[in-house]
Amino acid sequence: MEMQPGQMAYDRASTVFSPDGRLFQVEYALQAIQMGGTAVAVTYEAGIIFVAFRNLPTSSLAEAGSIEKSFAIDSGLGCVTAGLIADSRVLVEFLRVEAQRHRLTYGESAPYSLLGHALGTLLQQFTQFGGTRPFAVSLLLGGFLGTTPGLVELDPSGATIGWKAYAIGRNRRAVADFLEEKVTEHLSEDAAFKLAVQAVAEGSPTPFLAEALDVAILEPATELRRLTPAEVARRVQGMPFIGAPERKGNGR
Amino acid sequence: MEMQPGQMAYDRASTVFSPDGRLFQVEYALQAIQMGGTAVAVTYEAGIIFVAFRNLPTSSLAEAGSIEKSFAIDSGLGCVTAGLIADSRVLVEFLRVEAQRHRLTYGESAPYSLLGHALGTLLQQFTQFGGTRPFAVSLLLGGFLGTTPGLVELDPSGATIGWKAYAIGRNRRAVADFLEEKVTEHLSEDAAFKLAVQAVAEGSPTPFLAEALDVAILEPATELRRLTPAEVARRVQGMPFIGAPERKGNGR
Amino acid sequence: MEMQPGQMAYDRASTVFSPDGRLFQVEYALQAIQMGGTAVAVTYEAGIIFVAFRNLPTSSLAEAGSIEKSFAIDSGLGCVTAGLIADSRVLVEFLRVEAQRHRLTYGESAPYSLLGHALGTLLQQFTQFGGTRPFAVSLLLGGFLGTTPGLVELDPSGATIGWKAYAIGRNRRAVADFLEEKVTEHLSEDAAFKLAVQAVAEGSPTPFLAEALDVAILEPATELRRLTPAEVARRVQGMPFIGAPERKGNGR
Amino acid sequence: MEMQPGQMAYDRASTVFSPDGRLFQVEYALQAIQMGGTAVAVTYEAGIIFVAFRNLPTSSLAEAGSIEKSFAIDSGLGCVTAGLIADSRVLVEFLRVEAQRHRLTYGESAPYSLLGHALGTLLQQFTQFGGTRPFAVSLLLGGFLGTTPGLVELDPSGATIGWKAYAIGRNRRAVADFLEEKVTEHLSEDAAFKLAVQAVAEGSPTPFLAEALDVAILEPATELRRLTPAEVARRVQGMPFIGAPERKGNGR
Amino acid sequence: MEMQPGQMAYDRASTVFSPDGRLFQVEYALQAIQMGGTAVAVTYEAGIIFVAFRNLPTSSLAEAGSIEKSFAIDSGLGCVTAGLIADSRVLVEFLRVEAQRHRLTYGESAPYSLLGHALGTLLQQFTQFGGTRPFAVSLLLGGFLGTTPGLVELDPSGATIGWKAYAIGRNRRAVADFLEEKVTEHLSEDAAFKLAVQAVAEGSPTPFLAEALDVAILEPATELRRLTPAEVARRVQGMPFIGAPERKGNGR
Amino acid sequence: MEMQPGQMAYDRASTVFSPDGRLFQVEYALQAIQMGGTAVAVTYEAGIIFVAFRNLPTSSLAEAGSIEKSFAIDSGLGCVTAGLIADSRVLVEFLRVEAQRHRLTYGESAPYSLLGHALGTLLQQFTQFGGTRPFAVSLLLGGFLGTTPGLVELDPSGATIGWKAYAIGRNRRAVADFLEEKVTEHLSEDAAFKLAVQAVAEGSPTPFLAEALDVAILEPATELRRLTPAEVARRVQGMPFIGAPERKGNGR
Amino acid sequence: MEMQPGQMAYDRASTVFSPDGRLFQVEYALQAIQMGGTAVAVTYEAGIIFVAFRNLPTSSLAEAGSIEKSFAIDSGLGCVTAGLIADSRVLVEFLRVEAQRHRLTYGESAPYSLLGHALGTLLQQFTQFGGTRPFAVSLLLGGFLGTTPGLVELDPSGATIGWKAYAIGRNRRAVADFLEEKVTEHLSEDAAFKLAVQAVAEGSPTPFLAEALDVAILEPATELRRLTPAEVARRVQGMPFIGAPERKGNGR
Repeated sequence: MEMQPGQMAYDRASTVFSPDGRLFQVEYALQAIQMGGTAVAVTYEAGIIFVAFRNLPTSSLAEAGSIEKSFAIDSGLGCVTAGLIADSRVLVEFLRVEAQRHRLTYGESAPYSLLGHALGTLLQQFTQFGGTRPFAVSLLLGGFLGTTPGLVELDPSGATIGWKAYAIGRNRRAVADFLEEKVTEHLSEDAAFKLAVQAVAEGSPTPFLAEALDVAILEPATELRRLTPAEVARRVQGMPFIGAPERKGNGR
Repeated sequence: MEMQPGQMAYDRASTVFSPDGRLFQVEYALQAIQMGGTAVAVTYEAGIIFVAFRNLPTSSLAEAGSIEKSFAIDSGLGCVTAGLIADSRVLVEFLRVEAQRHRLTYGESAPYSLLGHALGTLLQQFTQFGGTRPFAVSLLLGGFLGTTPGLVELDPSGATIGWKAYAIGRNRRAVADFLEEKVTEHLSEDAAFKLAVQAVAEGSPTPFLAEALDVAILEPATELRRLTPAEVARRVQGMPFIGAPERKGNGR
Repeated sequence: MEMQPGQMAYDRASTVFSPDGRLFQVEYALQAIQMGGTAVAVTYEAGIIFVAFRNLPTSSLAEAGSIEKSFAIDSGLGCVTAGLIADSRVLVEFLRVEAQRHRLTYGESAPYSLLGHALGTLLQQFTQFGGTRPFAVSLLLGGFLGTTPGLVELDPSGATIGWKAYAIGRNRRAVADFLEEKVTEHLSEDAAFKLAVQAVAEGSPTPFLAEALDVAILEPATELRRLTPAEVARRVQGMPFIGAPERKGNGR
Repeated sequence: MEMQPGQMAYDRASTVFSPDGRLFQVEYALQAIQMGGTAVAVTYEAGIIFVAFRNLPTSSLAEAGSIEKSFAIDSGLGCVTAGLIADSRVLVEFLRVEAQRHRLTYGESAPYSLLGHALGTLLQQFTQFGGTRPFAVSLLLGGFLGTTPGLVELDPSGATIGWKAYAIGRNRRAVADFLEEKVTEHLSEDAAFKLAVQAVAEGSPTPFLAEALDVAILEPATELRRLTPAEVARRVQGMPFIGAPERKGNGR
Repeated sequence: MEMQPGQMAYDRASTVFSPDGRLFQVEYALQAIQMGGTAVAVTYEAGIIFVAFRNLPTSSLAEAGSIEKSFAIDSGLGCVTAGLIADSRVLVEFLRVEAQRHRLTYGESAPYSLLGHALGTLLQQFTQFGGTRPFAVSLLLGGFLGTTPGLVELDPSGATIGWKAYAIGRNRRAVADFLEEKVTEHLSEDAAFKLAVQAVAEGSPTPFLAEALDVAILEPATELRRLTPAEVARRVQGMPFIGAPERKGNGR
Repeated sequence: MEMQPGQMAYDRASTVFSPDGRLFQVEYALQAIQMGGTAVAVTYEAGIIFVAFRNLPTSSLAEAGSIEKSFAIDSGLGCVTAGLIADSRVLVEFLRVEAQRHRLTYGESAPYSLLGHALGTLLQQFTQFGGTRPFAVSLLLGGFLGTTPGLVELDPSGATIGWKAYAIGRNRRAVADFLEEKVTEHLSEDAAFKLAVQAVAEGSPTPFLAEALDVAILEPATELRRLTPAEVARRVQGMPFIGAPERKGNGR
Repeated sequence: MEMQPGQMAYDRASTVFSPDGRLFQVEYALQAIQMGGTAVAVTYEAGIIFVAFRNLPTSSLAEAGSIEKSFAIDSGLGCVTAGLIADSRVLVEFLRVEAQRHRLTYGESAPYSLLGHALGTLLQQFTQFGGTRPFAVSLLLGGFLGTTPGLVELDPSGATIGWKAYAIGRNRRAVADFLEEKVTEHLSEDAAFKLAVQAVAEGSPTPFLAEALDVAILEPATELRRLTPAEVARRVQGMPFIGAPERKGNGR
C-alpha cells in the first residue's frame, strides 16, 4: 500500500478521519486480510459451497483439520472467513451466540441477512470507538430464504453486501472477476464445487495440495458439513492446479 | 479539501476547536460522505420519492437489493442515506427504536421532526465527547404532518434543516440547485419520480444502469415501499442518462 | 483571530491554562459563534422581542420554519441562540427539562435567573473537565420577575450577565453599541420590534429577505410566540435593509 | 509572567511537578485571577465589609446587579470572589451546600474556618488529579466566632490563611499593603467601608463609577446584605477616585 | 529483528495496524519467546511427552524443580510453555480454572481443543484492546480425544493449530523441521521421549546437563506426571548432547 | 536541582522509571518541600516538642494562628508537616479518620507506627498509579508506646523511618546534623523546646519573629497542645536568632 | 545501564515490548533494586537465616528498628526484601492477607510456594496493564515443607525461582556466587548465620556497623524472630568486615 504525504498523521486510530474522509486503520485491516489465503463461496440450486485456501504448515505433523476457515453457525447457517485466525474465532463465536439467541426468542433459525446486520453493527463499533482496532476479518455468511441460498459479505468496516458467489482474502478482485465470468444459473453441486476450487486456484500464486483446501457444504435445515481430507482429495483429482507442494518451512 | 497551514494541529479530535472555531473532524466526515453516491428526496402531493445512486459492484453476482440506501422506519416514516454503509445502519437502527418507543408511549407514530431532533442530538454527542469520531452519514428523513409530506436533513454535526426536496452525497450542491430550479408545487408522483431520478443523474459523472438506483416511495400511514428492480427499470426506460455501464472491477 | 507565538502549546484542551491564564478552547468556541448570524433580544414594557438572522439556504425548497433560533422553554420563559445548531439544541433541551423539574417541585415557573445559573454551571463543566469541548453557543434567556421582563446572557465559559437588551453572534459588539444608543425606557412592543430588527440589520453585511428573520415574542405567563413568515413580512415592510437576496448556493 | 527555558515541558497538566517542585497550572490559574477586578474584605467591630470592583459592561442596558462578586452563604456567612465568574459560581454553590449540610447535621451555622477547610480540600483535588484544571478563583470567606468577625482566604492551590482584612484579584499585593498600613483596631462600619472602597480604588488603574462597586455587609446571625446601587452611590459621594467612566466597548 | 523505515510509527500499541496490516507488538512478543529455551511435545501411541529446556541458574543452590515449564491442567490435560515465566503462570491458571468450570458444568474433562479455543480468545483480546500488551507466551496444550493424544499450539496472537508433535521457543523452526523428519507413526513412549530430548538438543547451541530438562508425561485420564531429576538423568544417560555445563553466572 | 541529559524523557509521570531506576516526580515533590519552612520534632522524657517555621505573611492583618504546621490527630497523637499546605491538610485528615477508625474498632488509640504505615501506603499509591502526582509533603508523626515518645518520618515516596528527633523542610540535612550533635538522653521539656527552636533557627537564612514559630507539645493520653503566640514569645525571649523581621511583601 | 539507540522509544510504559521483546520498565525497576542494600537468605537444617544490609541514617537519633527489611508473614512464613521501602510494604501486606485468607479457608498455614505464586501473579499484572509501573522490589520468601526449609525468589517481572540460599539487591550476582561456593549441606544455625553475614559483607563496598544489619531467624511453626541489635552485635563480634562507620550525612 503506497502512502501519501501526510497520511501518517491520520492513520493510527480508528477514531480519526483523514482530511479526505478516509479511515486508514480500516484500510490497513483490509491489507492484513489480503495477506491470508483466498476463500470463496458459491451458491448453487440446493445449497452453498465454501472453499478456502489454508496456509497450512507444510509439516505432516500438523492436524490440517485444526485450521478451520469454514464454520457451522446453526442449522442452515455457515460461513467462511479470511484474515486473522483469532479475530475470526471471536466473530464466529458472536454469530453462534446471536443465532442461538434468535432461536430461543423466536423458535426458528435466524435469517442470515439479520445475522449479517448484527455482525456488521459489531464490526462498525470497532471503527468508531477508541482504544481498540478494527477486526482484520472478511467473512462470507451463508444461509437460506426458504430454500433459496444466499450470501452476505462482511468486511472490517461493518458494511454488508449480498452475493450469489464471491471471494475474500488474497487476490479477491481477480478471483471475483473469475467467478463473475464463470458462474451461471442452475449450477449443480458438483459444478459449483469445481468452480469454487478453480476460483481459489486463481487466487493462489502456486499449485497446492488438496489438503490445503478447506471445503464445506451447506444445505437447508442441516448443519454445515466440512468435507474430510479424503473426500476433498477424491473430488479434486485430476484438476491441473493441484500440484506438488513447494516446501516452505513450518508455515507461518 | 485543501489544507491551511496549522490546520493539522487541530484536526485530529472531535473535542478540539481550531482558532477560527471549526471542528475539522466534522468537516472530514462530510468529505467521506461526498465520496459516496448522490441521494435525493422529493415531496409531492401525496407522498415522498427517495432515489439514491448505489455504488453497485458491477458484478451480476451481487444482490443489488442488499445495498440499501432507503429504509423504512415506521408506518409513514422513512429515510434515505449517503455515507458509510455501516454508520448508516447504526443510525437507522436508532431511528427505528426511537419510533417504536414513541409508539409504545403515546400510541401513535412519532412526528418526523421529533425523530429528526432525537437523531440530531445523538449525532451532536459524537462531535463533543472524546474517544470517538463523528458519524460519516447524511440522511434525509421523511414523514407526514397530517397528510402533508416533509423532510428533515441531518448531517454529521447534528444540525437539522427542513426541506421540500433536497440532495445529499456526491455533488450535493449542484444537485440541490437542479432541484431548486425544477421542483414546482403540486407535483404528481410520476413527475416527482422523474425529477428525482434526473437529479441523481445530475450528480453522477457518467451514465448508469437502472439497477444502480435504489428507489422508494413513502405514503401516509403505510410502510415505505422500495421499488423492485423491474419496476425501476420500467419507469426509467427511455431516460437519456440511463446508459451502458462502464465496467469498474468489483465495486468498492 | 491572530495567534501569538507559543499559543499553540496551550490551545488544544479545555483543561489547560496558558501562562497568562487564558482558556483558548473557550475563546475558539466564541470564534465559532461569531461565524453565525446575529441574534438580538429587547425587553419592552410588556414583554421581550427576540429577533435572529437565520443563515437560510437561499433555496425556496427549504422549510424556513425548521431553522429555529428562538425557543419556548416554559410559560413565560424563552430564549434566542447563536452558534452551532446542534449544540444549541442540547442546551435548549437542558433548559426545558430544568424548567419542568422546577415546576414539578415547586408548582411554579422557574425564575429565569435561576435557570440561567443552572445552565451556566453546565457550561462551566465543559471548560474544566477533559475529554470534551466547550459548547459553541451564546444564548439570551428571557423571562419575567413578576411582570418585569429580564434577560440573562450565557456564553461558552458559563458566565452570566443580565441585560435589558443585548446582542449575540456576528458583530455582537457593534450591534450592542447600536442597542445601547437606541433603546429607551417604556418601549412599546412595536418600537422594540423595529429596534430589534434594525439591530440585526446592523450586524448583517448585506441586505436580506424578511424570511431570513426568526422573530418571537414572549409575554408573561404565556408560551413564546414565534411570528409566522407572513407576519414578519408584513411588519418589516418598508424597512430599508430588507433587500433583494443575493444568491449564495445552498447555504451552509 | 516570564517563562524560563524548559518551563513548557512541565506546565500543561496539574499532575506534573517541575524539577524545582512547582505546579505551573496552579500558577497560571492565579494569573487568570489577576486579570479580573480587585476585591477586598475588611473586618470591623461588628461585622465585615466586602467591596469588589466589577468589570461592568459600560452599557446602561446591563443589569449591574446580575454581576455578583459577593455572595451570601448562610446566616452569618458570606464571601467575595475574584477570577472566572463561572468557576466562582461552582465554589459558592459548594459552600452553600456544605453550610446547609452542617446546619442539618448539627443544628447550627457552620464555623467559617471549617467551611474554608472543606473548600480548600475541594480545590486541592483539582491540583492533584488529571483530566481537569484548577479553579481560577480566589475567595475571601467571612464569618463569626461568637461575634468576632474573621476571614479565610482561599486560592487555586487550596491553601487557606486567616486575615483581619485582605485583598484578592488585580494588584492584590499593592492593595494588601495599603490595607496593612491603614487598617486599625476598632474600626466603625463606616470607617471600614471607606477603607475598603479606597483599597479597591488603589487596585484600579483608572477612576470608576460608583455602580462598578459591588458592596456587601455581613453581620452576625443575619444574611449578607448587598447594598443597592443607590446606597453605594450615596456613600461614596465625594470620594476622589469615583470619576467619570471611560467608555470601553461592551465590557468583556 | 530488522526494522523497516517507518515501522516505529506503528509498533507501540496492540491497537494499531501498520499500513501493510501487521500488528508489531504481537511480533515483538514472539521475539521475547524466542529468547527463552526450546520446548517440545511429541504424541505417541499411548500419550504425550513434554520436554523443555530450562534456563537453569547454574547454581547448585537453585531448586531446579521450582522452574516449571510443563503443567498439569486436569486429568488427561497438560501443557508445556515457552516465554515469560510470569505470563505463563497466568495462562496456566486460566486453563485450570476453565477446565474445572467445564468439569463442574458437564461432569467430564474439558476437550483439549475447546480449552485451546478458550485460551485463544483470551490471548486475542490482548491484541485488540488498548492499555495492555500481548502475552509473551507460546504454549502446547495436550489432551486426548478418547484415547488418541493430540496437541494444540497457541501463540500471542491467539491463533491455534493442531499438531502431532511440535516445538516452541528458541530455534522453533529448526527443531520443528527435525521433528518433521524423525517422527513416525506408532512411536513407543521411549522412542517419543528420546526424540523429544534430541529435538530440544537441536534447539540448544551448547550441550547441557540432564537437570536442565523439564520432562513430563501425560496419559489418558491421569494427571500429568513430571519426571524426577533422577529419572531424567537415568533415561538420558549416554545421549551425546548431554555434556558438562558451561558456567554462566546465576542464570537470568 | 541540576538536570542530566535525557532526564526530561522520564520525569513527567509517577508511573515511569528512568533507566537508572529513579522516580523523578517523587524527587521533584521533595524539591517542593525544600521550598517551605523547616519543621522539627524532638522527643524528651515526657513528651514531644514540635516546632515549625511558618512562612508568615509579614502583615499584622494575618491571623498567624490560621497557618498551622502542627496538628492534633487523636489523644496522644500529633504531627508537624512541611510542604504544600493543601496537600498537608489532606494527609492530616486521613490520619484523623484512620485514628478514629482504629479507636472505634479496638477501643484504644492507634499505635503511631501503625498510623505511619497506613499513611505510607496511601503515599505509595500516588507514586505508582497514573493520572495523579505524589503528595508534596514530609511529615513527622509523634505518639507514645506506653509512655515512651516516638516519631515516624514520612516522605512523598511513602517510606517511613523512626526517629528520636528529626527535621523536615528547608535545609533538612543541616538541621538534622545539628540535632544529632545536640540532642542527649533525658532531655527536660524546656531543654527540648530550646533545642528545637535553635534547630529551626539553624534552618533559617535570616533572623525571625517569635510569631513565625508554630510550637506544639504532645504528652501521653492528652490532645496536642499548640502554644499561644504569647507563650511562644515569652519562652523564646532572649534567644539570639529571634530578630527584627525583614519586610518581604505579603508573604507568598 | 547503558542505553542502545532507539531504546527510548520503547522504555516508557509497561505495556510496550521493544522490537527484541524486552520490557524496559521491568529492567529499570531491577535497576532501582540494585541501588539499595544487599539482602541474603540461607536455609540450614532447622530453619532460615535472613540478613539484610540497611541503608541506615548514620544518626544515633534514628530508630534502627524502624527500618525493616525482614518481615513475619505468618507462623513459619517470613521474607526479606530489597528495593523501594514503600513498595515492599505493599507486597508484605499482600502476603500477610493472602496467608490469613488461606488459614481461614483451609485451617492451616499457606504453603510458601503457593504464596509465592500468588505474589508473582500480582507482580505480573503490573507489567502488563497500563497506567502504572512495576514494583521495584525483589523478595526472598521463606517457609517450610513439613520441616524442610525453602525459599522462593520474586522479582519485578513476577517470575519465581526456588533456592536453598540466595541474594537480592546490590551486587546480587557476586554475593550469590559467594553463597554458591560456601554453602554446604547440613549447616548449623550458627554456620548459616556467619555465612549470611559474610555474604552481605561481600555485597558492601565498605565496612559497616553491626547495627546496619537486619537479622531474622525463621523456624517451623513459629513466628519470624528478628534479632535485637544487642544480639546482632554480640554474634558478629570479631568479624573483620564489621568496621567503624564512615559518616555519610543523614542517610537517604
